[in-house]
Amino acid sequence: GAGFVLREHQHIRYNPLRDDWVLVSAHRMKRPWQGQGEKPVQEDVPRYDPSNPLCPGATRANGKVNPEYESTFVFDNDFPALEPDAPEPSCLPGVGDHPLFRSASAQGVCKVMCFHPWSDMTLPLMALPEIRAVIDKWAELAVELGATYPWVQIFENKGAMMGCSNPHPHCQVWASNFLPNEARLEDRTQREHLQARGQPLLLEYGRLEAQRKERLVVENTDWLVVVPYWAVWPFQTLLLPRRHVTQLQDLSADERDSLASIMKRLLTKYDNLFEVSFPYSMGWHGAPTGSHLGEDCGHWLLHAHYYPPLLRSASVRKFMVGYEMLAQAQRDLTPEQAAQRLRSLPEEHYRTRAQ
Amino acid sequence: GAGFVLREHQHIRYNPLRDDWVLVSAHRMKRPWQGQGEKPVQEDVPRYDPSNPLCPGATRANGKVNPEYESTFVFDNDFPALEPDAPEPSCLPGVGDHPLFRSASAQGVCKVMCFHPWSDMTLPLMALPEIRAVIDKWAELAVELGATYPWVQIFENKGAMMGCSNPHPHCQVWASNFLPNEARLEDRTQREHLQARGQPLLLEYGRLEAQRKERLVVENTDWLVVVPYWAVWPFQTLLLPRRHVTQLQDLSADERDSLASIMKRLLTKYDNLFEVSFPYSMGWHGAPTGSHLGEDCGHWLLHAHYYPPLLRSASVRKFMVGYEMLAQAQRDLTPEQAAQRLRSLPEEHYRTRAQ
Ligand SMILES: O=P(O)(O)O[C@H]1O[C@H](CO)[C@@H](O)[C@H](O)[C@H]1O
Ligand SMILES: O=P(O)(O)O[C@H]1O[C@H](CO)[C@@H](O)[C@H](O)[C@H]1O
Repeated sequence: GAGFVLREHQHIRYNPLRDDWVLVSAHRMKRPWQGQGEKPVQEDVPRYDPSNPLCPGATRANGKVNPEYESTFVFDNDFPALEPDAPEPSCLPGVGDHPLFRSASAQGVCKVMCFHPWSDMTLPLMALPEIRAVIDKWAELAVELGATYPWVQIFENKGAMMGCSNPHPHCQVWASNFLPNEARLEDRTQREHLQARGQPLLLEYGRLEAQRKERLVVENTDWLVVVPYWAVWPFQTLLLPRRHVTQLQDLSADERDSLASIMKRLLTKYDNLFEVSFPYSMGWHGAPTGSHLGEDCGHWLLHAHYYPPLLRSASVRKFMVGYEMLAQAQRDLTPEQAAQRLRSLPEEHYRTRAQ
Repeated sequence: GAGFVLREHQHIRYNPLRDDWVLVSAHRMKRPWQGQGEKPVQEDVPRYDPSNPLCPGATRANGKVNPEYESTFVFDNDFPALEPDAPEPSCLPGVGDHPLFRSASAQGVCKVMCFHPWSDMTLPLMALPEIRAVIDKWAELAVELGATYPWVQIFENKGAMMGCSNPHPHCQVWASNFLPNEARLEDRTQREHLQARGQPLLLEYGRLEAQRKERLVVENTDWLVVVPYWAVWPFQTLLLPRRHVTQLQDLSADERDSLASIMKRLLTKYDNLFEVSFPYSMGWHGAPTGSHLGEDCGHWLLHAHYYPPLLRSASVRKFMVGYEMLAQAQRDLTPEQAAQRLRSLPEEHYRTRAQ
């Protein structure tokens, strides 16, 4: 329409992967912020603390002693949200099987995976072969847990702001006997898109973004990172392979190396944005496993979502609250503005530059 | 199943209003918490601060001076996410009308509504006629804005933890020319339920909860409050009328009085839970308005959602992060446990008791 200025005027955008919408109100960045500031991100983490249950050689809550690991280290979560042998809830007291009171069994496993033996290390500061070791371990767990479970959710909560209770670099892997909401949703939208247009949704999307470039953050031969057209979080990104690969374990050796490289570049930019160890939650989505392994999952494309909370500075986050919880996600700068800012940041980490 | 213990064993529960699931892992409350604590909730708010733009007589960012109001006071948000005359984005640069790059116009208004002239006042401490005045003003705005806009979202962010930038008791009203995600979702599920079962979803649900009682928090002749069977937030509640009323403006004078009463009782219990002014986001959902006013919206039931973040104490919240964002909401105590705790709390406010 006449007079529409992308940086000034609000509009809504459609998220084809979740079949929902986001309200983009670019002009809201002009608003002064008098609300809550966040505690400073902890930057003075000791490299080794024998009382930290994630450190090599430390004793965990259940009395087990960690090995003196030198690369990654995986163990069962001591307080798992999912356990393998939980009984079926067919007799929830007073509930019966009314359609408004539906429940189902939840079985699974929760694992913790340390990325590195040092507590003061983070992925962007790690060497490429160290990141590659993390990727290989992810693929290994996806195979191992995916043999039984239909969904293996690999995710990292980074920073206290994202509920992470331990600064030691680590992620979690929760495998379940059910397809979680986000998996069901993306399965449906990707399936419908393939039927309607003859190409996988995210493969088509990635190719278009590689041409248009305005939402591109970093790219290499095998991967690209964009602030998706429908991003909700201020600096949300989507990491996509260029090849039609549906699961982590199908990545070639070269693709794993180039993944390590693009992750390091993305996460370095993130840290450089506000010169702080950038908090986020991230996770991998790929074709379902377990009983789905025999099915045709060609509508899927492997991808990772990064959801970082910071908006204006190291201490001012975006709150997804009232309107967002009750009505619809709302963002205060356009995805193109966010991509442009990330793109223009150096690829050398501010902490190694400073030294 | 044999051996299933509600308080011990995880399961998933279906949310018929959002057509999704929640993972209930009751045993996770046993986990020690070493993560981020929240800043203490601000309890020492000055009653009157001339520099607070929500106070009577104060000058706002745009130079306007508030009246010396004595009850509620409504004004246009000085930094609105929605504006009435935003141009149509038919020409987003480089976007065209590809199905993966869909956008649409967003027009609307954002209003702020002060509940009371005093900054140190909160709804549970207000007198019933004062709360009744808030309800009347809500209904008035719903009529006024609903004449044009299909959705009028009334919501309150309470507490800095919920992104509320001003302690003065207030809510917001955002009206839009589109049905937001949550509205579309609840419209679909309620419509499907009425078709399938011949009764409105939430009317049937409320009647069953009134009989079963295990998730009931407070009730009176016209209203009931439950921790819904599918609650996601630890102490989430759903406020329902007993009568089939679809919009705030249709409430009778008696129903408005009894609503003021049940709100005061619920919010007093919330404050008493951790003896702190309890943070939450809340909002009203009812039948769509504007162009929908002529349609049959009998599948709707008016209701309010309360989403409070606190989990263990005044300073330990639930983080909806990695697994929740990437896979599925997860809760650490059962809805029945939460309801039982809220039910057993006194209905006299801890601050009036102490004096
Ligand atoms: O109340 P405010 O300061 O306008 O803003 C608050 O509520 C809005 C609506 O839920 C959110 O978009 C903001 O992130 C939040 O800080
Ligand atoms: O990493 P933790 O300490 O197990 O827990 C964190 O991540 C979980 C999975 O996203 C969330 O359910 C918790 O609320 C959060 O604090």
